[in-house]
Amino acid sequence: MSGTRAWHLASRPSGLPDMTNFELKEVELEPLGEGTVRVENRWLSVDPYMRGRMNDTKSYVPPFEIGAPLQGGAVGKVVESSSPDLAVGDTVFHTMGWREQAVGEAKHFTKVPAMGVPDEQWLGNLGLTGATAYFGLLRVAEAKEGDIVFVSAAAGAVGSAVVQIAKAKGMTVIGSAGGAEKCAWVRELGANAAIDYKAGPVVKQLMEAAPKGIDVYFDNVGGDHLDAAFACARNQARFAICGMIEDYNTGSNHAFRYIMRMIAARIRMQGFLYFDFLSDMPDFYRDMGGWIASGKVKSRETVREGIEAAPQAFLDLFSGANMGKMLVKL
Amino acid sequence: MSGTRAWHLASRPSGLPDMTNFELKEVELEPLGEGTVRVENRWLSVDPYMRGRMNDTKSYVPPFEIGAPLQGGAVGKVVESSSPDLAVGDTVFHTMGWREQAVGEAKHFTKVPAMGVPDEQWLGNLGLTGATAYFGLLRVAEAKEGDIVFVSAAAGAVGSAVVQIAKAKGMTVIGSAGGAEKCAWVRELGANAAIDYKAGPVVKQLMEAAPKGIDVYFDNVGGDHLDAAFACARNQARFAICGMIEDYNTGSNHAFRYIMRMIAARIRMQGFLYFDFLSDMPDFYRDMGGWIASGKVKSRETVREGIEAAPQAFLDLFSGANMGKMLVKL
Repeated sequence: MSGTRAWHLASRPSGLPDMTNFELKEVELEPLGEGTVRVENRWLSVDPYMRGRMNDTKSYVPPFEIGAPLQGGAVGKVVESSSPDLAVGDTVFHTMGWREQAVGEAKHFTKVPAMGVPDEQWLGNLGLTGATAYFGLLRVAEAKEGDIVFVSAAAGAVGSAVVQIAKAKGMTVIGSAGGAEKCAWVRELGANAAIDYKAGPVVKQLMEAAPKGIDVYFDNVGGDHLDAAFACARNQARFAICGMIEDYNTGSNHAFRYIMRMIAARIRMQGFLYFDFLSDMPDFYRDMGGWIASGKVKSRETVREGIEAAPQAFLDLFSGANMGKMLVKL
Repeated sequence: MSGTRAWHLASRPSGLPDMTNFELKEVELEPLGEGTVRVENRWLSVDPYMRGRMNDTKSYVPPFEIGAPLQGGAVGKVVESSSPDLAVGDTVFHTMGWREQAVGEAKHFTKVPAMGVPDEQWLGNLGLTGATAYFGLLRVAEAKEGDIVFVSAAAGAVGSAVVQIAKAKGMTVIGSAGGAEKCAWVRELGANAAIDYKAGPVVKQLMEAAPKGIDVYFDNVGGDHLDAAFACARNQARFAICGMIEDYNTGSNHAFRYIMRMIAARIRMQGFLYFDFLSDMPDFYRDMGGWIASGKVKSRETVREGIEAAPQAFLDLFSGANMGKMLVKL
């Protein structure tokens, strides 16, 4: 048996988590049994949805357990294999992140397709965040050419993918982000307009940016952004509800002044999770792979170095420290 | 030219309307031109949606104008006709309510089908309220046999139709209403359980009444009821958003503590208006006519007498004074 370091949940946070909720500890790795592999992680993903798993509540994935290693998306290299399905040197995606090495059955590791993209993209535009953007925008919200699309957290991992997919598909895009630097990047990504939510009320800015209203809202934020979307929705508008990061730590206590517009405008709101679309991943790889190859979709990462950096990278998501995907490089 | 009395909008209410917003005045009736008819109203409908038309805001129907007669659903008898399409004595439905007599082109009056039902049902279960219940439940929420359905304002005009349609289609139904008498009637209509929202928090009562959660929520109320539905929704739950009467006078200032469940449970919320389904009215008449004939759907009206009673009947909708459909009999 050999050891590796893994981040453990030390205690459940109440409200915003802090470093005391995490502990880096040595764990023993199982010896390799028949059909298993050992993977050395190279990139770890930290994502807002992980906050939900720190609560002791039933949801679509089980909560993290106190005293146990955390889990999350990771990309690594196979360094030892007793499975015919994976060879030493293969690059794999898996969900045993927050640790240096992982051992498990080969079926829990997915060899990434040979598409000539940097490894870290399998945690970004070709991974969970890209797929979330793709299926949320095109399947859930049924956004189509000519639509006016509003997306919040547009400088984030999912939002920046939404902006670019929407532009690749011929839509008009308004993105919101916090601060001038992020807004400039959102415009660089192709957005027709960018709203700085720190600079004034979202509803007022959205009414100015979209005087004809919006057909689609891709929600990563909830709260005032969602209310602004209610205010500006055109008839038959579709909202894809992907995240409500404003509420992850505090719980929701927003009043929605404009929610009644759902009726007159016949707004459809739909919550979703990307893994309901797993059977359609080939469509996603085909389209997203094409957009990346042609330069229509670009990636940007905010990278922290070393296993020690993981919890702070996660915490920084909630103060909006990232541009694009937040990753930890081992 | 001859005269008739009609209720006019005297002023726009701010918040809850009162009698000062209404004025009963004589209006001149146009002389009958070619293709027109004169109708003596027998039944007037007062409905919560009319509150929205008292505001000076753009919506799916134009606002009422100050100093002009109010409009609304009505059933009457043709008393004079210069149109080949309608004969004296025909019973017609039309939207020139809030008045004793109406004159207009025959195309604005719909002869009610000969189904042997009392005239007032064309303003209730066979009218706008029944069609709203039918299309909202079956088309918008796509409720089906075996579903667990929650409906608010279940003793109201639309809600009582929802309860009965859902039972006729083999669903489990939980209705909410204000007070023991209304709840008893909701159970009489066939609901498996009735929640008295005046007796305690809706979310707690709904969790007890639907320990397995709900598949469908038919919303007439908004606010705490909608939040309770978020809390109790099962995966892939569908919400038909028909009305938010709690907010019509005050504007919405509710916090939705459980709205984030939209994501994990993949809830779909859809606002709707019955008139988007006008082309499917034959389906509605066939099904609803059958249920009425077989006794599966029963009607109950709260009837006020005389044109003078109309505004107070309307105002009483907001204190929940009605059981079933609120009507004014002339």
